[in-house]
Amino acid sequence: MARRYAILGTGALGGFYGARLARAGLDVHFLLHGDFRYVREHGLMVESKDGDFVLPRVQAYGDIRDMPPCEVVLVALKTTHNHLLPGLLPLVVAERGVVVMMQNGLGSEEAAAKVVPEREILAGLCFLCSNKVGPGHIRHLDYGTVRLAKYAADGRPAGTSDSMRALVQDFTSAGIRADLSDDLGLARWQKLVWNVPMSGLSVVLDADTRELMANLETRALAEAMMREVVAGARVCGRQIREDFVQKMIDMTLAMAPYQASMKIDFDQKKPMELESIYGNPVRAASGAMPLVEMLYRQLEFLDDRNRSA
Amino acid sequence: MARRYAILGTGALGGFYGARLARAGLDVHFLLHGDFRYVREHGLMVESKDGDFVLPRVQAYGDIRDMPPCEVVLVALKTTHNHLLPGLLPLVVAERGVVVMMQNGLGSEEAAAKVVPEREILAGLCFLCSNKVGPGHIRHLDYGTVRLAKYAADGRPAGTSDSMRALVQDFTSAGIRADLSDDLGLARWQKLVWNVPMSGLSVVLDADTRELMANLETRALAEAMMREVVAGARVCGRQIREDFVQKMIDMTLAMAPYQASMKIDFDQKKPMELESIYGNPVRAASGAMPLVEMLYRQLEFLDDRNRSA
Repeated sequence: MARRYAILGTGALGGFYGARLARAGLDVHFLLHGDFRYVREHGLMVESKDGDFVLPRVQAYGDIRDMPPCEVVLVALKTTHNHLLPGLLPLVVAERGVVVMMQNGLGSEEAAAKVVPEREILAGLCFLCSNKVGPGHIRHLDYGTVRLAKYAADGRPAGTSDSMRALVQDFTSAGIRADLSDDLGLARWQKLVWNVPMSGLSVVLDADTRELMANLETRALAEAMMREVVAGARVCGRQIREDFVQKMIDMTLAMAPYQASMKIDFDQKKPMELESIYGNPVRAASGAMPLVEMLYRQLEFLDDRNRSA
Repeated sequence: MARRYAILGTGALGGFYGARLARAGLDVHFLLHGDFRYVREHGLMVESKDGDFVLPRVQAYGDIRDMPPCEVVLVALKTTHNHLLPGLLPLVVAERGVVVMMQNGLGSEEAAAKVVPEREILAGLCFLCSNKVGPGHIRHLDYGTVRLAKYAADGRPAGTSDSMRALVQDFTSAGIRADLSDDLGLARWQKLVWNVPMSGLSVVLDADTRELMANLETRALAEAMMREVVAGARVCGRQIREDFVQKMIDMTLAMAPYQASMKIDFDQKKPMELESIYGNPVRAASGAMPLVEMLYRQLEFLDDRNRSA
């Protein structure tokens, strides 16, 4: 029997990957909130640089209690909604199911492990530029690789597993590039190298990635913060090579102008993912990231004002 | 013969002090730019917590070449206009005249000394909350003390002079509190303790002093930056006591909400005084102010965009 997939959070990210999997014929069940009625009637639409497509009918749910048990649960909620996990995961993960936390920053797998400690928990790190532009309507701009890594309660590298390899097979069959990391901590910190400076600076300075790179001051600032993240990773026992920072800068220079998802959340007056992308890493780095800490404080100020407005 | 005063730059600061001196019967000559015609016809109006007053006729000039030689030249231009000093100071400073640089940050006295090296040059540090709200119309919100300090080319404490004491006498007679510092470097760095965090954060976060203090994250950030300025002063051989930071925080908490002048410049799309308040101190502190440097870079980005818009 084929693996049944649940997508928790059918937005820019969950909607994109879920639609790709469903298009490939996999059995995908989508949990929605605001867009539920629309998607139940009209399905999902994906505009993508790899080709547009529409799924006029998808298995859409507005209530987790209506979903069948799923062998693979892809969690694509914002981390600001992780307080909902206790009311979601136990109701949808099948007996020998696996939970894949497709979220930003640090702390997602720990949050899932608290709720379903007996299940296999993976990180699914998404290198994806995509936005939700309307109900059930996703615009995929660039990239799309998913990197899978296994969570272990002791925080140490946990190697790879059969279920990870099976997932790579499914993803590949759906045209999603996927690879494996044997060290979740390293993979998460590497991803933060880009995310930490670019997300926060784009909010504080109201700028997209191209503007931040075009100005030599903010480019130097982004680089300095990237080096701090490398130092933070080292505090957590993860070695990121020095030339990784330059690679991230070069990649950003080559990228199309992009609004980080945190910027979109902020502009829409939604809460930003500050704890996963800033708070948890800053605390884990115990003082090794002073500039990042300053950005975190600036963002907390803006988030407070945004939410009280 | 009474000392003749020149005010170069009749705005929120020069207009306020000049009007006070003129009201006290001193011989004050005002250089204006945009407001020249208006002020020549209507004079100056000061709204002040110490009492409003109008000077219907003042000695106003639109061209420095029309001004008489003055024994005291109060320079109240923005530091972003200091490239104009060579065309101004030599034409207006009397033979034994004194130049008082009533500007923010570091580097003003050096700039004046390059132009009129044989004249006595003072810093006039203004602890003043005032805004220009219309042509020739100044609103004085709070404070107003002027601290005078003598410039020496070697950068060392230069003590006090007869002309400084004479100035204190004139200022006092005009209802302006004035005091003397025997160490210009110490006085300038002390003033930066407040100015550096509050000016820049108010621009980057679009906030007034009260909002920045009410939020515990930005208050902690302002404190951290104040401590960096104390460390920067130490690099330049100036000891600021530890409790000075707490005094500045307490003062700001007690203050009426205030828009720093840099914030007003930014909102009006004028160039900000970045070099005097950030660039020169950052370079002088040689690495002791990393958070301040980050703020400087953020401000440079915003200033660039503001001016290209």
